[in-house]
Amino acid sequence: LPSRAQGAASGDPLPSWNGGAAKRSITNFVDRVTREGSADFVPAAARIATFDNDGTLWVEHPVYAQMAFALDRVKALAPLHPEWKDKQPFKAVLEGDMKTLAASGEHGMAELVMATHAGMTTEEFEKIVRDWFVTARHPRFKRPYIELSYQPMIELLAYLRANGFKTYIVSGGGIEFMRPISERVYGVPPEQVIGSSIKTRFEMRDGRPELLRLPEVNFINDKGGKPVGINEFIGRRPIAAFGNSDGDLEMLQWTTLAGGVSLGLIVHHTDAVREYAYDRDTSFGRLDKALDAAAINKWTVVDMKDDWNRVFAFQ
Amino acid sequence: LPSRAQGAASGDPLPSWNGGAAKRSITNFVDRVTREGSADFVPAAARIATFDNDGTLWVEHPVYAQMAFALDRVKALAPLHPEWKDKQPFKAVLEGDMKTLAASGEHGMAELVMATHAGMTTEEFEKIVRDWFVTARHPRFKRPYIELSYQPMIELLAYLRANGFKTYIVSGGGIEFMRPISERVYGVPPEQVIGSSIKTRFEMRDGRPELLRLPEVNFINDKGGKPVGINEFIGRRPIAAFGNSDGDLEMLQWTTLAGGVSLGLIVHHTDAVREYAYDRDTSFGRLDKALDAAAINKWTVVDMKDDWNRVFAFQ
Ligand SMILES: [Ca+2]
Ligand SMILES: [Ca+2]
Repeated sequence: LPSRAQGAASGDPLPSWNGGAAKRSITNFVDRVTREGSADFVPAAARIATFDNDGTLWVEHPVYAQMAFALDRVKALAPLHPEWKDKQPFKAVLEGDMKTLAASGEHGMAELVMATHAGMTTEEFEKIVRDWFVTARHPRFKRPYIELSYQPMIELLAYLRANGFKTYIVSGGGIEFMRPISERVYGVPPEQVIGSSIKTRFEMRDGRPELLRLPEVNFINDKGGKPVGINEFIGRRPIAAFGNSDGDLEMLQWTTLAGGVSLGLIVHHTDAVREYAYDRDTSFGRLDKALDAAAINKWTVVDMKDDWNRVFAFQ
Repeated sequence: LPSRAQGAASGDPLPSWNGGAAKRSITNFVDRVTREGSADFVPAAARIATFDNDGTLWVEHPVYAQMAFALDRVKALAPLHPEWKDKQPFKAVLEGDMKTLAASGEHGMAELVMATHAGMTTEEFEKIVRDWFVTARHPRFKRPYIELSYQPMIELLAYLRANGFKTYIVSGGGIEFMRPISERVYGVPPEQVIGSSIKTRFEMRDGRPELLRLPEVNFINDKGGKPVGINEFIGRRPIAAFGNSDGDLEMLQWTTLAGGVSLGLIVHHTDAVREYAYDRDTSFGRLDKALDAAAINKWTVVDMKDDWNRVFAFQ
């Protein structure tokens, strides 16, 4: 396999991508929208590209990173909450009873999120998140989560930016969970991260301005919420969108089906050896309707096993 | 008075500002945060500046531009709504009965906004707004609203950007009312406009993706909502904030009272000849608590009459 340095030396901005239809669809699209005089030329200001995060830019199995964070936080906070020993879904977390936890469903997860993501200031939460990313390790790869981004997608983000694109993360995950690491991992500044959020309230506390995180959902940036979030935060339609699951279907429709040149791309997890293989039958990143829609709408489907000669930078 | 061209020729980036404490507070601040080796140096990525819109960047009297828009829309839509002839607050609008309209209060205004800002797609609304800005005229100045931005503030926006700042509009007004004209008037792209909003819903209609505007408040970006909106959209704290009313108090606190170098500035309307004079006693842009806070917190207060040698570009 070519190393990163070799790829860069050869002048290929996407060295971790094997030659093939997926890679060609990307480079052809970028050429069409950036070449002066091209019929499909798009001015730099309108070159907006949106990326889903979990499963598109980094690992989402065996569970979403933010879920691992929430479970770790329950364990860390348990001494302050003796009542959790007898209260579901906290009891299940503390006993490692994943079956009972799964059975608690979305309501159970929401309870865990509110108990671990609210009740502090935004600055305090940011510090908790930063600390977790330093100490937590992925159960299979035994590495910090920030090392588990996909090298081909990191190259793609940089390639698009080098061609005048503004790159955004548009995730179902929490906006304040991603922002502390988005610049370092993806080169995406906090103001280009869109995600789900809980409500906050402004308060002056002892003469100091604070935003307090409240246990109340503000916005769910998933499925039909993705175009809503994109429109609210960016105010213009992307010309390229990248996802990996049914949660990205509406973002891909919004981006590609309104007329005009566009690129829709889905990362298909097909590599159980180097990463994971899953699509229609998984609780984390189900790809079913969006895979059918990809065929109909001519979206690029990336086969991780065949299209990527490297998955992680450390491999 | 020096003309714009003379000012530019002299190398002064703020030619419409008279020399004095207000102008010095701006240029001193910019020098401190941009000069390499300065103890207060701020990296370019963290140079975030937020600007209120109505009364800070353009005229808000005799009524907010968006209120004039809503009233014009009621009149335009009246033939489709014969029931409005007998229904308040619509009846008051159609009869020009401003006293009854004022008495309908916030509830009445909300009804007018929902009747005129919802029920269409985001693309349709954008076209309505663009058309209105072409045809509508300010009742006193007899000019399109987009010509009623303050020339000194336009210079200030450009001066900050030339010094590496990212400039944002943070308005209590509707985000989709400002975005169609923000680039043209202020050089601020849509993704750097933060404002109040109503909810939208994604729909596929005859194979085309649409966002439908719903008659339901999503977010009010005013008072304590301004720091909330800034944190949600930008994810970092501004180092400079510009406002003109009590609606900006919390944004100024959030920006200036957390430690670190910062600039807070309030535009005080003191010029009834060239524009308007008002502060503690007005329904549009009341400046009362924030004026008291300015003295305590050493925020710059701009005296429009004394500090600006020109208000509008056409003067
Ligand atoms: Ca995903
Ligand atoms: Ca204002």
